[in-house]
Amino acid sequence: MAGKEVAVLWLLAVLGSVSGGKVLVWPVDNSHWLNMEYVLKELVARGHEVTVLLPSCFLILNATDHSPFRFEVVEVPISKKEMAATLDESFYFWFYEERELPLWKRIYRVIQLLSKLEAVTKTICDGVLRDKMLMERLKASAFDVLVADPLVPSGELFAEMLGIPFVYTIRFSLGNTVERLCGGLPAPPSYVPAILSRLTDKMSFTERLYNIISYFLQDLTYHHLFWRNWDQYYSEVLGRPTTLCETMGKAEIWLIRTYWDFEFPRPFLPNFEFVGGLHCQPAKPLPKEMEEFVQSSGEHGVVVFSLGSMVYNLTDEKSNVIARALSQLPQKVLWRYKGKKPEALGSNTRTYDWIPQNDLLGHPLTKAFITHGGTNGIYEAIYHGIPLVGIPMFADQHDNIAHMRAKGAAVELDFGTLKTEDLVDAVNTVINNSSYKENALRLSKIHHDQPITPLDRAVFWIEFVMRHKGAKHLRPAAHHLTWYQYHCLDVLAFLFTCAAIAVFILVKCCLFCCRKRGRIAKRKKE
Amino acid sequence: MAGKEVAVLWLLAVLGSVSGGKVLVWPVDNSHWLNMEYVLKELVARGHEVTVLLPSCFLILNATDHSPFRFEVVEVPISKKEMAATLDESFYFWFYEERELPLWKRIYRVIQLLSKLEAVTKTICDGVLRDKMLMERLKASAFDVLVADPLVPSGELFAEMLGIPFVYTIRFSLGNTVERLCGGLPAPPSYVPAILSRLTDKMSFTERLYNIISYFLQDLTYHHLFWRNWDQYYSEVLGRPTTLCETMGKAEIWLIRTYWDFEFPRPFLPNFEFVGGLHCQPAKPLPKEMEEFVQSSGEHGVVVFSLGSMVYNLTDEKSNVIARALSQLPQKVLWRYKGKKPEALGSNTRTYDWIPQNDLLGHPLTKAFITHGGTNGIYEAIYHGIPLVGIPMFADQHDNIAHMRAKGAAVELDFGTLKTEDLVDAVNTVINNSSYKENALRLSKIHHDQPITPLDRAVFWIEFVMRHKGAKHLRPAAHHLTWYQYHCLDVLAFLFTCAAIAVFILVKCCLFCCRKRGRIAKRKKE
Repeated sequence: MAGKEVAVLWLLAVLGSVSGGKVLVWPVDNSHWLNMEYVLKELVARGHEVTVLLPSCFLILNATDHSPFRFEVVEVPISKKEMAATLDESFYFWFYEERELPLWKRIYRVIQLLSKLEAVTKTICDGVLRDKMLMERLKASAFDVLVADPLVPSGELFAEMLGIPFVYTIRFSLGNTVERLCGGLPAPPSYVPAILSRLTDKMSFTERLYNIISYFLQDLTYHHLFWRNWDQYYSEVLGRPTTLCETMGKAEIWLIRTYWDFEFPRPFLPNFEFVGGLHCQPAKPLPKEMEEFVQSSGEHGVVVFSLGSMVYNLTDEKSNVIARALSQLPQKVLWRYKGKKPEALGSNTRTYDWIPQNDLLGHPLTKAFITHGGTNGIYEAIYHGIPLVGIPMFADQHDNIAHMRAKGAAVELDFGTLKTEDLVDAVNTVINNSSYKENALRLSKIHHDQPITPLDRAVFWIEFVMRHKGAKHLRPAAHHLTWYQYHCLDVLAFLFTCAAIAVFILVKCCLFCCRKRGRIAKRKKE
Repeated sequence: MAGKEVAVLWLLAVLGSVSGGKVLVWPVDNSHWLNMEYVLKELVARGHEVTVLLPSCFLILNATDHSPFRFEVVEVPISKKEMAATLDESFYFWFYEERELPLWKRIYRVIQLLSKLEAVTKTICDGVLRDKMLMERLKASAFDVLVADPLVPSGELFAEMLGIPFVYTIRFSLGNTVERLCGGLPAPPSYVPAILSRLTDKMSFTERLYNIISYFLQDLTYHHLFWRNWDQYYSEVLGRPTTLCETMGKAEIWLIRTYWDFEFPRPFLPNFEFVGGLHCQPAKPLPKEMEEFVQSSGEHGVVVFSLGSMVYNLTDEKSNVIARALSQLPQKVLWRYKGKKPEALGSNTRTYDWIPQNDLLGHPLTKAFITHGGTNGIYEAIYHGIPLVGIPMFADQHDNIAHMRAKGAAVELDFGTLKTEDLVDAVNTVINNSSYKENALRLSKIHHDQPITPLDRAVFWIEFVMRHKGAKHLRPAAHHLTWYQYHCLDVLAFLFTCAAIAVFILVKCCLFCCRKRGRIAKRKKE
């Protein structure tokens, strides 16, 4: 039948010349890597060779021995200890200082931290560029595509130097500035909330005012203040006048790590693919001891609790507030917590250094998830249809919980002012008020009901770029325009001038006629 | 393996409860039906029951006997003859009068024709609404979804009355006004050319000026002039104050009949799916006589020529200009032409009342396609990678050919001033200059290299709406905003006012200080 033939043709077209490609990767440290790793593993599974450029100071990439990837270690004059100290400093700021310091000190600290991060990035970038042997080797390898995280610059520069197309995988940049100003992504501030604004897509007048100011300030900080001196760096390296933003704007495909189950509907471009939740999987069986503990919960079920991989210690006071709350729940609680065991820990609560979070969230007895609101964890909850109690701490976590609250699948608590009864009430609410579970299940259904899985889509577009040496047919012509041309300000100015001249001439003519009449009338009187 | 389990889960989720749905259809006459029919046939093939509401005056739906659809014929006080006369009048205007009439007469005729079309649509709409038995029957049928073409109003009104979600399938509305102003589709005029403007995505200052004016005039004509009195009609029927645009904006999914192989990359919304070319299929064998004629062309191959189903006669002069040109080609030519055989017809040219266009374009010996530039034909050429000679006549045909020219796969000719040598040169160019074939093949590759076929995507989203009783999670919050809120004009006005007040106070303070100083100085002098 014709339909089947078409399907076969399509399959052949899609499968043709996709295996055996060469992928170069420019990763980012920490949780960003987790998400990218899934895509890379799938690429390996499909027969591609994946080479990861690995700065010697990166923390996450310790286990290079049993990895399915090739690693090109780049020696940089930064030790892992120094790298850890820089990240810890940032973390300490967001976790503690940001709440306590006065505004001016906070701004000063943000600028200081960003400058440090920039210096580290430049050192790493220099490390790659100065290693002539490495660059020669990379050139000789003739990679088909580079996959990068644009959280920090560099990836796009290497791609340009190697003359290969590149694909971004990104959750967001500050103010979505990179996506908007470099990638051309439209974001009407009337219903697309700025990153870190904690707003939803339904805003009052004051919220829209706040949103516009948020966009403006984030653009100013990110684009004009910090990355401006990258323009000169990029121009020098590439030997032609260019900017960081122009180079970033050459990304063939932007793989965004969210989807419409979590994201508010917003305008986007054909070279943006929303592949949120690509790391989610059906639950695997739990370790025996854990399964027994979970089963012992009976009809009440269990609550899973994790504040993420970066929170490994709490003050005694805070950990006891939490432990006391958990002890009052009828459910059994599995708490991922590495710190000192709180005294108030109830018999229904067990702490673990690490938990198989996805498998636990997919367990039929799991009733709720208490989370800091990291995107990966939220997506696991969406995947398995589990309602949330969000205790956001920093970065995008407040935004993430705001999204889930707006979709009716989460209750939010403030970490700073957290009281025992707040946590008890919140967990009871999301478990006993059925609307939370219903909404979580609705999001889960939306997530599962896509034409193809997010992971397949992500891999498809990377392979598309490999097959076609880019995806230029998806690149909007907006990239050729200046900002005032983009907004048609020149045309509007012209139209306004024409209108003004027309009005001016009209008024002059009227005045002239009036005067003439006046004179004639005067003469007649005389 | 986990990956496979996920795939199975996904498949189950997608396949779950999709068959056995009930689809109601509100079609549009002529070529618009052809495209919709493919989607509907696929829905039937997947086990759904498709019922088409069929006004008794519609021309295209004669063969209801062997159709896979159920038909609900709506008796309307318009005869098929009157309907044909109205369409012929429109066609005659676009084909002849539009070129020859002076501007003011042209505008008058457009207004006249649109008013006639509106009157016909209202009569048909009344026909459905007044048939109480029919409405009762439709209500009792409990349809899951209504599929409509929003070229003319009505479909969305029936969907609202029956309380079912609806999906649009559309090529474009005048000025994209319905998609933009009702559907919320963003269209920056700096790089998204207005419909009927004949522009591409790369525009000079003058072209951008022309583009903005085009949008403005088309919005004015379409939205504010012609459909305004539908607001009252809709409010009366629904028994609550509403507008046509508000009702149209409730479409769950907009299936747009183009894709990025043809369309210029532009911003869009998550509830817009670009499914262009869904009707294309691999070529089937040609009728014996035709295959022999094609084979007789030898290495030169054949040229396929059609000006579409609506052009059935040309002046003797024009048909001879064309025939003479075709006779000078080394290729054999298959010309779809119902009119009087031109005297200059060469021995290499055969005319046919009808040709299996898709099968011919997919024939390995086909070298070029001379076309009026209808979207369906262009998509068949893209599918099979055939370069075009475009002789656009009316409606979107100039735009379509402008797109294909910009993509390097077509040469354009002007029908009014067409000379024999122009046509010969154009055909020789697209055949002998290899870039045209290369670009046509490039577009073909892009078309075939999609994660899933356009037809599957179209059907998926209709079924999604049936499964979930809508697709509200894809609906942007822009629908809740007034036009000035959408553009944040209220916020900008507030900010401007604040800035003006600040400047005013500053100036006043400065003046006050200056005066005070002046007075002190004066006193000192005294």
